[in-house]
Amino acid sequence: MTDISLEDRGFTLGHGLFETVLWADDALYYWDAHLERLDRGCQVLGLPSPQPEAMHRAALVALEAAGRPERAAVRLNWSAGPGARGLDPPTDPHPVLTATAAAVATPKGGATLVIARGVRRNDRSPAARLKSLSYLDNVLARAEARETGADEALMLNTGGEIACAAAANVFWVEGDRLCTPALDCGVLDGIMRAKVLESASRGGLEAREIRADSAKIHAAEAIFLTNSLIGLRPVGRLDGKTFAPGAAISRLSDMLAAFV
Amino acid sequence: MTDISLEDRGFTLGHGLFETVLWADDALYYWDAHLERLDRGCQVLGLPSPQPEAMHRAALVALEAAGRPERAAVRLNWSAGPGARGLDPPTDPHPVLTATAAAVATPKGGATLVIARGVRRNDRSPAARLKSLSYLDNVLARAEARETGADEALMLNTGGEIACAAAANVFWVEGDRLCTPALDCGVLDGIMRAKVLESASRGGLEAREIRADSAKIHAAEAIFLTNSLIGLRPVGRLDGKTFAPGAAISRLSDMLAAFV
Repeated sequence: MTDISLEDRGFTLGHGLFETVLWADDALYYWDAHLERLDRGCQVLGLPSPQPEAMHRAALVALEAAGRPERAAVRLNWSAGPGARGLDPPTDPHPVLTATAAAVATPKGGATLVIARGVRRNDRSPAARLKSLSYLDNVLARAEARETGADEALMLNTGGEIACAAAANVFWVEGDRLCTPALDCGVLDGIMRAKVLESASRGGLEAREIRADSAKIHAAEAIFLTNSLIGLRPVGRLDGKTFAPGAAISRLSDMLAAFV
Repeated sequence: MTDISLEDRGFTLGHGLFETVLWADDALYYWDAHLERLDRGCQVLGLPSPQPEAMHRAALVALEAAGRPERAAVRLNWSAGPGARGLDPPTDPHPVLTATAAAVATPKGGATLVIARGVRRNDRSPAARLKSLSYLDNVLARAEARETGADEALMLNTGGEIACAAAANVFWVEGDRLCTPALDCGVLDGIMRAKVLESASRGGLEAREIRADSAKIHAAEAIFLTNSLIGLRPVGRLDGKTFAPGAAISRLSDMLAAFV
């Protein structure tokens, strides 16, 4: 585990990307999807893409260093690398690949969510879709949720539409339909989000990417969060309203598990 | 110059702050104002404030390491320090102070500006006012400006109002009045911005903090940028329109120089 130079733009400016990959059953889950997302991010950020082999090697080294846990989060950082003072990148950027790994448990029970009031997602920035090293808005949203005793914050975009949670995507059930905010609402382009949409479509379940305000999600039958580490986690409370998602979510979960 | 740990939240999440202080005439300009802004930022970010003495020492060590240039930018980083995986900070945060310094020249001539189209400032985040380690939106705006051959990007907020440049605040002259966007337009709380407003008021010049769209600034008599390093720099072009700010800006510049 190397350190990061004080002149790395990943540190000084948050100019870089990361991926969080689930290690379980001796495998790196959805590895190709993570690499593809990182590639798309590199295009937005003006960075060359990392070598897939180097990424894989870094992931395995980090897992070994962490004692090769049975179930782990592997975090791969692709920071923009050293640069001179100021915002302009060097003409020939040399991004830096680093990786860490840590054991993770599957969270138990339903998540408690609140809608963040003090910070919104910037749907007018391409960075909103990316797992970037500039994650301060997410940190602030999560802190706000924790202050109220909640597990996680649901973030609105600057227009007041639902976007995603601070560290997860959000889905809800309306009748027989699965809904999730469209990517251009300022939504993180989640790997598990895409897998759920794909699985729903293969399973013959109607799933829609929509624009919705908070009234819409408050009225939902059931809500769940997704990300690469938790997979699919039901929401038990949102803004003080209780959801008893048991039946709906476990039906969905079973259905999706067959495909995801 | 130490390195940054891979587990520092300043690196992993952009959770931290920085200050860029001008060193010239053997002095650190507006030192107290920089410390006060950092303090305000710490409150927003849930971090303890650094010790002023430690900050000062770090600045001087960085200047020595850089060969004690006559005119330099001293960058002080106050990153949130090590944390476990995920967004939640440790209950007892230990921020990390680091500093670098580099010689800087005063830019010559008028700046060429374009309004960034691909990214806007998040006026719905308290981070917009801060010099934070999550500066990716600014990096993207600047890159867009450079692609068109401009020096700097003028950023709008998500409502389409003028906010500030990627690395400077913006002022313009309307008749005998100085205007600048109000802080709640998503504006960086610039040290030099505050000094100019204060100086104008002491000099008996009307200066207003307003909300304005781009038509307003296109119609200005003169435009200038401010930050701690450049002081006050006239804008020669904005979106292809030429400004010949000579008289207006040098009058202002002289007037403000007496106070700033």
